[in-house]
Amino acid sequence: MSKKETLIIGRQPLVEALQSGRVIDKILLQKNASGEVLSHIRALSKEFDVPMQMVPVEKLNYMTKANHQGVIALAALVVYKELDEVLEEITEKGETPLFIMLDGITDVRNIGAIARSAYCCGAQAIIIPDKGVGLLNEEAMKSSAGALDHIHIIRVNSLIKAVDSLREKGVLVYTSEMKAEKKIYELPLTDGCCIIMGNEEKGVQPYLAKAADAFFSIPMATKFDSFNVSVAAGIVLYEALKQRMG
Amino acid sequence: MSKKETLIIGRQPLVEALQSGRVIDKILLQKNASGEVLSHIRALSKEFDVPMQMVPVEKLNYMTKANHQGVIALAALVVYKELDEVLEEITEKGETPLFIMLDGITDVRNIGAIARSAYCCGAQAIIIPDKGVGLLNEEAMKSSAGALDHIHIIRVNSLIKAVDSLREKGVLVYTSEMKAEKKIYELPLTDGCCIIMGNEEKGVQPYLAKAADAFFSIPMATKFDSFNVSVAAGIVLYEALKQRMG
Repeated sequence: MSKKETLIIGRQPLVEALQSGRVIDKILLQKNASGEVLSHIRALSKEFDVPMQMVPVEKLNYMTKANHQGVIALAALVVYKELDEVLEEITEKGETPLFIMLDGITDVRNIGAIARSAYCCGAQAIIIPDKGVGLLNEEAMKSSAGALDHIHIIRVNSLIKAVDSLREKGVLVYTSEMKAEKKIYELPLTDGCCIIMGNEEKGVQPYLAKAADAFFSIPMATKFDSFNVSVAAGIVLYEALKQRMG
Repeated sequence: MSKKETLIIGRQPLVEALQSGRVIDKILLQKNASGEVLSHIRALSKEFDVPMQMVPVEKLNYMTKANHQGVIALAALVVYKELDEVLEEITEKGETPLFIMLDGITDVRNIGAIARSAYCCGAQAIIIPDKGVGLLNEEAMKSSAGALDHIHIIRVNSLIKAVDSLREKGVLVYTSEMKAEKKIYELPLTDGCCIIMGNEEKGVQPYLAKAADAFFSIPMATKFDSFNVSVAAGIVLYEALKQRMG
């Protein structure tokens, strides 16, 4: 997979990229842009489930000096996988799933650091939503020390549906929650499990937290704020690895 | 203590700041600058142990539009403490020391995140050198979620001397070392201890590592690179807290 973040500039190049099956992170479309090709792009973005954002023309002009014709797309740096595909692969290898789900983590350096810890601790995959998450761009890749190239990245259009699928397949879903009585080391992390880590400010969204099998907190010595989210994820992953090592 | 990062601009303001006992992180002196006040500043910087850096005039011009007269100083955001003073305070409170020493950590966001984890886990202090460490600036403060205001910051002009002082006072010194056989959870972290975390690329400097009482590694599932340094520090601090909670 390519390590270069690529802009796809202009209408026809984007149509071709989408039709060739290239994974696109996001399409930036100029506000008030029109034309037949643009409706075509809109339709393709729906078909291929690529998020589309309307932006002022100034943003596009800032990103490139080339003739962008009102549209620029960000090509994915990583190859996204399907949840079922990854679960199948893991089962075939006789491994026990250890996944991290990122709910609204916007800081790409946090995402990179989490991927790095995940790979260090033997997690097989990170699950991200297709919207409301930091892009897996070059900075994320750098922060991950390349781990984003080694771990499966599962991108889904609904985290709650992914939670349901995981539970159907027997994977337990745990959510971090500062006030939870159960400490992380009290959870059975040797079982197949997926841990949801929430947004830097707001934590895990309530509708998603509700769907989890259990809540946990990380012990603290002071009543201070909380750990940085990538540190918290690292502690959880370390605890899982320690339990799994026996 | 003030949260505003402050530039002290010009010769006389700096002399006054130094003489008033204000803590200065760094003095930037224009290359080839001359004059009696400048020799005075040089002498004061030695007396007060403030690092001085020679920079091209363009750097100073870029930092301020005011008449800098060849010198700008960065005032400290945090109040630095002495090692002995902190050890005494902890002993009086009946606490067991848990310190983190930062050897060449240059990324201010990592420093901030480490301070945050340290405070969350009940560590009392972070020990930093006066050179070769990222500045405790506003970005570090932000990454620490304010923890830099709550934890003691001990700034020393020699890390090795600090290690010697710690050991003399009965504080054990541990160093992270990727190849160490002993795992972090095998160390007695309930004893008074100080953990040295090394530079993002190079790890702990060999002369410093040699002076430690023990080496440890953090377990990994793969032969991949390593954890991000702030995640590694978080795991170590979590493990210490867990042991201390019994």
